[in-house]
Amino acid sequence: MTGWVVIAGIGPGNDAMVTPEVTAALAEATDVVGYIPYVERIAPRDGLTLHASDNRVEIDRSQHALQMAAEGRRVVVVSSGDPGVFAMAAAVFEAVEFGDPAWRQLDIRVLPGITAMLAASAACGAPLGHDFCAINLSDNLKPWHVIEKRLRLAAEADFAMAFYNPRSKSRPEGFAKALNTLQETCGDNRPMIFASNVSRPDQAIRVVPLQDAKPEMADMRTVVLLGNSQTRIIPGTEMIYTPRRSDL
Amino acid sequence: MTGWVVIAGIGPGNDAMVTPEVTAALAEATDVVGYIPYVERIAPRDGLTLHASDNRVEIDRSQHALQMAAEGRRVVVVSSGDPGVFAMAAAVFEAVEFGDPAWRQLDIRVLPGITAMLAASAACGAPLGHDFCAINLSDNLKPWHVIEKRLRLAAEADFAMAFYNPRSKSRPEGFAKALNTLQETCGDNRPMIFASNVSRPDQAIRVVPLQDAKPEMADMRTVVLLGNSQTRIIPGTEMIYTPRRSDL
Repeated sequence: MTGWVVIAGIGPGNDAMVTPEVTAALAEATDVVGYIPYVERIAPRDGLTLHASDNRVEIDRSQHALQMAAEGRRVVVVSSGDPGVFAMAAAVFEAVEFGDPAWRQLDIRVLPGITAMLAASAACGAPLGHDFCAINLSDNLKPWHVIEKRLRLAAEADFAMAFYNPRSKSRPEGFAKALNTLQETCGDNRPMIFASNVSRPDQAIRVVPLQDAKPEMADMRTVVLLGNSQTRIIPGTEMIYTPRRSDL
Repeated sequence: MTGWVVIAGIGPGNDAMVTPEVTAALAEATDVVGYIPYVERIAPRDGLTLHASDNRVEIDRSQHALQMAAEGRRVVVVSSGDPGVFAMAAAVFEAVEFGDPAWRQLDIRVLPGITAMLAASAACGAPLGHDFCAINLSDNLKPWHVIEKRLRLAAEADFAMAFYNPRSKSRPEGFAKALNTLQETCGDNRPMIFASNVSRPDQAIRVVPLQDAKPEMADMRTVVLLGNSQTRIIPGTEMIYTPRRSDL
């Protein structure tokens, strides 16, 4: 029996956004590991063991997955959205590099998924329709001054922006600081989009002019998008898009 | 009969990456419009008319789709990858804004897809596993100095980067200029990834140190990824990842 690890993106929440290759990998798996709410999305069946773990134990979870694969099991590591965007893929490769050298010979594959920013963008039009960046606002793994610098440079580059993990209970002040920076640096009233529970029945999309955005509009279940200087709301509609053309 | 327009992402090429909601929309459609090679991916059937058009006619194609929907037809506009990333969604909304005011009342939905950069990232590990940006290197719709400025600011921000449309026959010099800028501004030998025909049987992934990258390694069917200053290749493997942690 040959083991493997598949790091699979299960999209933002709606099963109609899970790709067939991810569904096929789950059907072949002996074990699924992941953060509790993501593992809860996987249907139990005979021969499949579900290993749900808490947040912030990404390396432990990765080591567990790799160890099981080394023992011949077929392991799917589930990530919300896309595993390569602020999710489990980088954690698994970090665990490979600094773990048992035998793990480097394992069959490890990453299966992409619909990441939250693209589902949110689709839900309100095409706000990321021109050059854009994606920034993780969590300062668990990087100092705040790095985030601050990136926000200023992204504004100067006139990127549309997507923000993951904007706000947690343990550090509610981060997003307030980010908003201040963006309001000052962008200096205009481009649309900011707060998208919660994207693609789920309780999806909520709130659009406000940047200068009216408030920290409490976001929590950790929100992905926040910000247009560039040219982003438009089509008059009389709720459709938002960033033009393909830039004449700046 | 009520018409609609769905702007659907059909992923980078492998049908196993097409989401079920996109497949369902195609099953309900009366008409599919899109660029020739993307429409060729749609299986013909009774009751479905395929309208393939050439590149660079995005607004004409959008107007055609909207007009058919206004006449009660069920139209899927197909985009490779994700429709919101350098693809048809922004073009359709531009056509709505500047077209027949009645089009603003149409049922228009965007269904996300697996965009090329995330499929390419998955194919080689997790090179976009930290903050990153996506830049369209085509200068059809923006002046070169805007691209140049964004490259410099993205390097200063230490974003990992994804480049779409790096090189065409009509303007082969653009990517050479971009490479020069990146080689000079980044000043290191982080991995650059040239991913062609991602997810297809003829997928080709080539990884070179940034200073060894050459313009002819890319064409319009290539998506190019560049790590940030911390991106690593796990020794003895071909796995590339950008660490989640940043201590800069």
